[in-house]
Amino acid sequence: MFNFPDPTQAQLTEDGQLKHFLDIEGLPESLLLELLDTADSFVDMSEQQVKKVPLLRGKTVANLFFENSTRTLSTFELAAKRLSADVLNLNISTSSTKKGETLKDTLMTLEAMHSDMFVVRHSDSGAAHFIASQVTPNVAIINAGDGRHAHPTQAMLDMMTIRRHKGGFKHLKVAIVGDILHSRVARSQIHALRILGVPEIRLIAPRTLLPRNVEMLGVKVFTNMAQGLRDADVVIMLRLQKERMTSALLPSESEFFKLYGLSEEKLAFAHPEAIVMHPGPINRGVEIASSVADGPKSVILNQVTNGIAVRMAVMSMAMSGQVAERAKKLEAGE
Amino acid sequence: MFNFPDPTQAQLTEDGQLKHFLDIEGLPESLLLELLDTADSFVDMSEQQVKKVPLLRGKTVANLFFENSTRTLSTFELAAKRLSADVLNLNISTSSTKKGETLKDTLMTLEAMHSDMFVVRHSDSGAAHFIASQVTPNVAIINAGDGRHAHPTQAMLDMMTIRRHKGGFKHLKVAIVGDILHSRVARSQIHALRILGVPEIRLIAPRTLLPRNVEMLGVKVFTNMAQGLRDADVVIMLRLQKERMTSALLPSESEFFKLYGLSEEKLAFAHPEAIVMHPGPINRGVEIASSVADGPKSVILNQVTNGIAVRMAVMSMAMSGQVAERAKKLEAGE
Amino acid sequence: MFNFPDPTQAQLTEDGQLKHFLDIEGLPESLLLELLDTADSFVDMSEQQVKKVPLLRGKTVANLFFENSTRTLSTFELAAKRLSADVLNLNISTSSTKKGETLKDTLMTLEAMHSDMFVVRHSDSGAAHFIASQVTPNVAIINAGDGRHAHPTQAMLDMMTIRRHKGGFKHLKVAIVGDILHSRVARSQIHALRILGVPEIRLIAPRTLLPRNVEMLGVKVFTNMAQGLRDADVVIMLRLQKERMTSALLPSESEFFKLYGLSEEKLAFAHPEAIVMHPGPINRGVEIASSVADGPKSVILNQVTNGIAVRMAVMSMAMSGQVAERAKKLEAGE
Repeated sequence: MFNFPDPTQAQLTEDGQLKHFLDIEGLPESLLLELLDTADSFVDMSEQQVKKVPLLRGKTVANLFFENSTRTLSTFELAAKRLSADVLNLNISTSSTKKGETLKDTLMTLEAMHSDMFVVRHSDSGAAHFIASQVTPNVAIINAGDGRHAHPTQAMLDMMTIRRHKGGFKHLKVAIVGDILHSRVARSQIHALRILGVPEIRLIAPRTLLPRNVEMLGVKVFTNMAQGLRDADVVIMLRLQKERMTSALLPSESEFFKLYGLSEEKLAFAHPEAIVMHPGPINRGVEIASSVADGPKSVILNQVTNGIAVRMAVMSMAMSGQVAERAKKLEAGE
Repeated sequence: MFNFPDPTQAQLTEDGQLKHFLDIEGLPESLLLELLDTADSFVDMSEQQVKKVPLLRGKTVANLFFENSTRTLSTFELAAKRLSADVLNLNISTSSTKKGETLKDTLMTLEAMHSDMFVVRHSDSGAAHFIASQVTPNVAIINAGDGRHAHPTQAMLDMMTIRRHKGGFKHLKVAIVGDILHSRVARSQIHALRILGVPEIRLIAPRTLLPRNVEMLGVKVFTNMAQGLRDADVVIMLRLQKERMTSALLPSESEFFKLYGLSEEKLAFAHPEAIVMHPGPINRGVEIASSVADGPKSVILNQVTNGIAVRMAVMSMAMSGQVAERAKKLEAGE
Repeated sequence: MFNFPDPTQAQLTEDGQLKHFLDIEGLPESLLLELLDTADSFVDMSEQQVKKVPLLRGKTVANLFFENSTRTLSTFELAAKRLSADVLNLNISTSSTKKGETLKDTLMTLEAMHSDMFVVRHSDSGAAHFIASQVTPNVAIINAGDGRHAHPTQAMLDMMTIRRHKGGFKHLKVAIVGDILHSRVARSQIHALRILGVPEIRLIAPRTLLPRNVEMLGVKVFTNMAQGLRDADVVIMLRLQKERMTSALLPSESEFFKLYGLSEEKLAFAHPEAIVMHPGPINRGVEIASSVADGPKSVILNQVTNGIAVRMAVMSMAMSGQVAERAKKLEAGE
């Protein structure tokens, strides 16, 4: 576990431009909206015949995955390639970097190779912040998921999906359902929804899967789907980590599905034009019924498409921030 | 095992252009010849200083290898890069996709990332057909080998090698030697040779390695090398899978070599200007003598070179077919 | 183990241009200086916004790593990509290529795919030479470390680092400290320092870690740090392979550090403006104190940066040599 420095300060240049992307918490609404606008422009591009722009040409993006995740790695790899970056995939087992010192040596070595950006996935909360505090200001750090702490690009692709389907945020009831306790995705979603002005954020989970004092985040808590889903405009299902199932926290898969799985019956409680989201990969019949996942209200595959666009937006904005900051320092004679 | 839809219909656009490449069976001769002509043009290019064309620039090719094959993966990766595509290599263990449903989720996710082409290798016969039937029409599927069923790019690189050395097909005696029973390569070769008008196709193998009723494919069957090789213009040796050797189907390696291995003595039965082919990697001293593999009649390394060119041809033609089909649909207002 | 042909003859074209890079031994000073000048130009480029030049555009570089090394592989991969080459990474376990014949088949196959360059890492001394003797003259071979024999790109990045910090070679006292016996790095460094005219090369190590008759290479041998480091301008620490520690050759880690580890106290024996080098990754507290590794005299991270530039220089020069040789042969009608 690492200490968390002030995230806002760490992520922005003096002029308020993004230079790292570590955490949603503390970012201004204007910046999140700029990010969504930029991502929208990349979605249009990805429907062109040539899905490639030269924004990161001649830049080196190193994917540092201390935790295995083929799907997330693939989306970052594709996003970087479509921005014309050179990509280096590094599979670093956590075991080889147990000591902070050795991790620091790895980072300094990659930095000395003139890498311009690290995309970091790590099982320890705070790892991306730690890395951002260790590298020179010239390397942009993108958090691709750290422990139970944050998964900010996932949250922003969710926001993008909501805005593209619902037109905005200020009028919405959004329900997040499932294992809130262990979910970095939920944590980042809650911050993003609050910053973007969603008036009603609901969490639905059994008591054992809810963090203590979670109400302090400004959310409403439900342990019952019928109540929690009532009139919801957006239903976000969380992935149930299979390894939790064997613990004492949860009943059997079929019991969980009966109580908290999203069936068509339960979805009927939500608003008739509700959308259904899931970060994937889905456990069919555990947290969501196949008929719902594949049904007309599901926007799960749109989330995947938007995920590439959001990652392209994050990468290009953070790189611009780095370039601007470096130029300013050179001008100032530093 | 999967069901096989009508392969011709699945592979071609309404205008008869290639849009997937799943199987040789059912394709018209004119299309195979067009493919060989296109591949010839890529061979010329690969002898230039800059071996790169922008035909797939801004396109994403995902290599989905459910079965490990470094060599085949490398040739597809190189072919895609020389066409300027962005390439994503995905090593997917079959275990993680045992259920068709989960495989489908993987496919839909990759599709939602705006992949333009899947190159599929799978140990189950029919896997590439199944995938082609599941994805939207915008993704081209290339079969890189499925179970015992087909390996169509291998067959086409063999046809290319034959044509470049023998000038055509209509006058040839072609012998295929070895483990016909388990060979997807042999199956695809037989279809290609028939479509291209080879008048005499011979199979040489022990009875235990011949499929039942194989004569129905229009081939002559021999269990004796002296008879089968007589006057042959082309001798195609198959790779003997080591794992078959331990089964009851086969005698020892040395016994197999004595009866069916291609020695210089046995090769003397063939036409004096015969060429010797092998899909590689070769088992020296098992199915072929080193002196033959490295000898003047061997065109084994030419096959490798032609393999890149054929894969570039298949990829660029299938992508053109997809683009044309999409344009037509847009025009029709679909 | 392989036989070593005459390295100079193997590495140069008739006109004295580099065409392979296998070993420092036997190369002329003028060529090493040309390599350093070329590398200097790439360092300047790597500080530009777009770190990419089209020198290897349309060329295929295959990284053949028979021995695992993420760090070295990454630097070669980045160097090739910054030269705009297409890169193919092949992880080849030594086990699958135990027989020279099979290795040869692998090489011939890669060659038939029109690879232009092989970067070879192998645990057997002489492997790169062997490969260079087996492939056609059109493929450039770069030695990325072979057994205990040579690691010539590492040595050249060290020379580059020395020249950039010390302005030249003819006036220097250079000390190499540690496990000389097992070090391919040390062997290549000694050759490079001699060719570039360093007047005093010192080796410092316990007797058990010194090769027999090492004095014949024109070096001075010390078993004591105080004497060996006296007035040294450059101190090169070698990495201590952890697996040696358990053998009878060495005392404990702390004992080794006490006698041969580079502490600030021992570094005080060297010239006040001495620089400290290490090929990385460093074992902090074993061969070098953290305060020295991170201190003002350390140029360890500069070595990493220079490593990319040197590899770009080696690759582009060897490719030019290959192209020139091929053109000459074509002209001569071969």
